[in-house]
Formats: sequence, C-alpha cells, structure tokens
Amino acid sequence: MAAPSELSYISALRALASHPGARGLQDDVAVLEIGDQQLVITHDMMVEGIHWLPGQDMADVAWKLVAVNLSDLAAKGAKPIGVILGQTLDRDQDRFLSGLEDALRTFDVPLLGGDTVSAGGGPVSLGLTALGKASCDPVPSRSGARPGDILYLSGPVGAAIIDFEAIKAGEAPLGSAFLRPHPLLAEGQALAPMVTAMMDVSDGVLLDAWRLATASAVTLSIATDDVPLAAPEDRREDALRWGDDYQLLFTAPAHVELPVKAAPIGTVEEGEPPLLLDGVAIFDPEGLGYQH
Amino acid sequence: MAAPSELSYISALRALASHPGARGLQDDVAVLEIGDQQLVITHDMMVEGIHWLPGQDMADVAWKLVAVNLSDLAAKGAKPIGVILGQTLDRDQDRFLSGLEDALRTFDVPLLGGDTVSAGGGPVSLGLTALGKASCDPVPSRSGARPGDILYLSGPVGAAIIDFEAIKAGEAPLGSAFLRPHPLLAEGQALAPMVTAMMDVSDGVLLDAWRLATASAVTLSIATDDVPLAAPEDRREDALRWGDDYQLLFTAPAHVELPVKAAPIGTVEEGEPPLLLDGVAIFDPEGLGYQH
Repeated sequence: MAAPSELSYISALRALASHPGARGLQDDVAVLEIGDQQLVITHDMMVEGIHWLPGQDMADVAWKLVAVNLSDLAAKGAKPIGVILGQTLDRDQDRFLSGLEDALRTFDVPLLGGDTVSAGGGPVSLGLTALGKASCDPVPSRSGARPGDILYLSGPVGAAIIDFEAIKAGEAPLGSAFLRPHPLLAEGQALAPMVTAMMDVSDGVLLDAWRLATASAVTLSIATDDVPLAAPEDRREDALRWGDDYQLLFTAPAHVELPVKAAPIGTVEEGEPPLLLDGVAIFDPEGLGYQH
Repeated sequence: MAAPSELSYISALRALASHPGARGLQDDVAVLEIGDQQLVITHDMMVEGIHWLPGQDMADVAWKLVAVNLSDLAAKGAKPIGVILGQTLDRDQDRFLSGLEDALRTFDVPLLGGDTVSAGGGPVSLGLTALGKASCDPVPSRSGARPGDILYLSGPVGAAIIDFEAIKAGEAPLGSAFLRPHPLLAEGQALAPMVTAMMDVSDGVLLDAWRLATASAVTLSIATDDVPLAAPEDRREDALRWGDDYQLLFTAPAHVELPVKAAPIGTVEEGEPPLLLDGVAIFDPEGLGYQH
C-alpha cells in the first residue's frame, strides 16, 4: 500500500499539472493536441524487487515494461507510435534486449530513443514512455461514467496472481499472464468511441473501479460474482484485489451494442459511495488492491 | 567511461530503432511527424551517486533534471510543451517538489504526467521525458555539418567543473552552473533555422564535438585556445573535457550572420579524423570527456 506521505506527495504533484492535457494526473495518460491530432502519452516505471522477482528472466521484464505501457494506450483507444526507454544497466542486457525486441515486434512499435545509465549499485530501474495517436475524439477518460451506464470488464482476472504464485514457488506458470501480458490494443480502439469511461486494470478490479468511480463522481454497484475469473473460485477475493491482469474496465450506455465481448459486472448509480460491492458501501480504498 | 559492454548494448539497441524519427539513437532526441507538426522528444535520467552528490539539495536535483532535458530541446530549436516525470521515491520529496516547481515555472513548462514508485531500498533514480514542438523544418541534427562551415560554441565552458569541485570540497559554489543550469531555449530557437548541425554540450566540448563530427562524417578542426572559458586558464584542459555546461555547439556556413553571440572555435573539413585539436589528429574518443 502507498504510504500516506506518498499520497500527499502525489497530491502536491497534481498542483503542478494544471495543463488540461495532464488530466489532473488522474488518468494514466496525458493527452496533447498537436495540430489536428491528439497525442496520448504514458510513462510507467518498473523497479527490481518491487515489480519483478529477483532472478526473473530479464526478457520477460522487458516485455512487461512495454506491455504495461501499451495497455495504458489501449485503454484510451490509442494506436502506439513508439516508445522511449530509460534504464539503469543490468547484468543481463542480452536477455533484456531479446525481450524488448520480441515485444516491439509483436506489437509493431518502434523504439524511438531513451537514455541508459549506471544503476549506481542499486536495483535496476526501468522507465518507458509510450506515445500513441488517438483513434477517436474525445479520448476516453476515467471521469465520464454516467448514472444508468453499465460497468463492463473485457475478460477474466486472476490468471496473473496464480502464475505469480507458481513462479514464486519455483514452479512453471500455467500461462503468460504474469510474465508476458498482452495489451488489448485492438479491443481498446474498437471500444473507445462507445465508452463513457475506460481504464486498464493494473492494480486490481476493485481498486481500479474505485478510482474510476471517484474520478467520475458516481457509485459503481458491482456484483462480485459476475466478475469473470481465470482462477479457482476459492481465490475470487484475491483475484478481485490483485493487479497485473490488464483487462479493460469501462462503462457504456445500456443501449450500446459492444463491438467486443465483455462481461457486465455492475451498474453506474448517482452519488456516493464510490463502490457498492454486493450492496455493501465502500468509501475507503484501503484493502481493495495494490496501491503504488 | 562507458564499459565496452555498455557501448555494444547501445549498438544493439540502435538496431531496434529503425524508425526514421529515432535518428538512429544518435541525436539526443526523437523527431515525430504528427499531422502537420514535428514533435521533438527527449528522455534523460539521473541516478543518485552518479549524477548528483550524496547530500545534495533535492531541489537542485529536480531543477537540473528539468534543465538537462530542456537543453536537449533547446539544441533542436524546439519549444517545450511539457514534461513527464518518472521517479523512485526519496526521503526528501518536499525539496524535490520545490525545485521541480521552480524549474517548471521558470521555463514555463507544465508537468503532464508520470509515475512514482518505491526505490526498493536503492539509490533514487529519476527520468524525465520532455516534449517540444519544432520551430523550424528540418529540425537540426548532429549530422548536417558540411566542409567549409564554421564550428561555434554559444558561450564559455568550465563553470560547472569549478562549482562541482567547490561543492565536493564542502564550499559554496561561485554560481549556479553545476546546480541549476539554464537551457538555452531562446538561443536554440533563434539559431535552429541557420545551423547545419547543433547539439548541447553535456559531456564535454571535445567529446561532444567528436560525436558531431562522426555523425556528420567530417573533420572538426578546433583551435582549443579559442574555446571561451569560465574557469581559470590553467584548468583549460579540464574545462574542455568536463560536461554539464549546456552550451550549444553548432556549425553554420561561413557567410551566415548569427542572431546570437557565439564564439567560432574551429572549422569543418572533409574526411577524417573526426577531430583535429590544434592540428593533432584524434580518432579515438577515449579521454575526450564524460561517456555514459
């Protein structure tokens, strides 16, 4: 969980982000008008020991660094233009390079630039800036959910925690959910013109739903049994609170026919609290997911 | 100096940067065509213990992080649009925030977004992506110097090393050169339409001149006594090899009347070696400056 000092620091940063394109630092991305285009920009970091397990293959780490940033573009319906890499140097650059190459080729995104510096003896620290072109106007935000909308999730969650636990126990994971997630770029672009709000699920369905609700100043009433699982039923509570699944969480008017399959998991209602989980009011995000 | 493995790693990265906007990772910036505009993007990192001294005021570190990135935009004649900050959290966020605010206000650039994560017990690692709008087409590169051009430096070097040595010795620095450099944004924009090649001097005049020469496939013949100094004459050799002065190094045809004051320090000649220093041929960049 984020320490209180970290949360107050982020609030202070928001005061410096008064440009409308910054979206109040509440939307994973910035949106800039450049001529007649809208540029979507995101930056996510990963730090050794925090975002990946010691000893993990750096090829998977490089893949994930690209994927999590492209997932933020996906949630805005943006088409990736390129990425800029900042990294402190690691002992295993060959594996890193191999995974980076895999990811860039798979998602057809070029490396545009960056910076490479010594880690100064500390853990490896990675940052990626991803740039994309908006595919529709307005670019979906977290703040547009309206009472009467339906809340959807693009697919099941839980695969990442199950795989993470296997890897931590020294076993082979069932799939690629934790190590090599896939950003839902095509789905995001198809959905973007129809949604009222959209974000990717990186920190847990419940916590991210809480954030979408507070940004939109609405209540999201979620039937937790309706959240599709890619984990055993007895792990439902964990799967709802664990991140790294990179599904799209979005709201759309009830009459809209969706262009991609998605599970309705709740409804949008007026006012407070941010969440109604099976009818129970949740005001405090503490315990809902992974805050960082 | 960069280890051979680091240099070969950067060569391998270049193979992934085949997009023309990446400029072969040889130009500090990427240049993207967005609609009818050209977007200039740069990303520089700073790591505790490598780029700043332990115990330095984090307000100065934040300022410098902004300034060094804006200096890369300045060297391309770009007008800053905004910055994206990636940082691992420090013990002194209040000072960092204060310096960040100072720099953003001074240079009139908004914070657009970013990511804040735990440092995992390691040194603080900072990355900034700066975005700018090109003010002229083509955007100056390092590779356009032509035989017959004059090589110029926008102002004196050496203030940063003198200030650095004072700070390291526990004394007050003479000025702000090391702690709070100023990117030459107005000068870069004025010069951009007239230069054949331009870059900022971040790693030492001689090393950066060597890079400009190799990118342009020309010889830069430099009269080292003509390089203006902001340090005692007996420190000339160090001042030529130390970075952090953030002057602009550029070439322009001999007949061009420059819109800003600059010192002619050499001439552009055909062929090899990259550098002729007072008539001595220099093929190898080793020992010319700070490689990282």
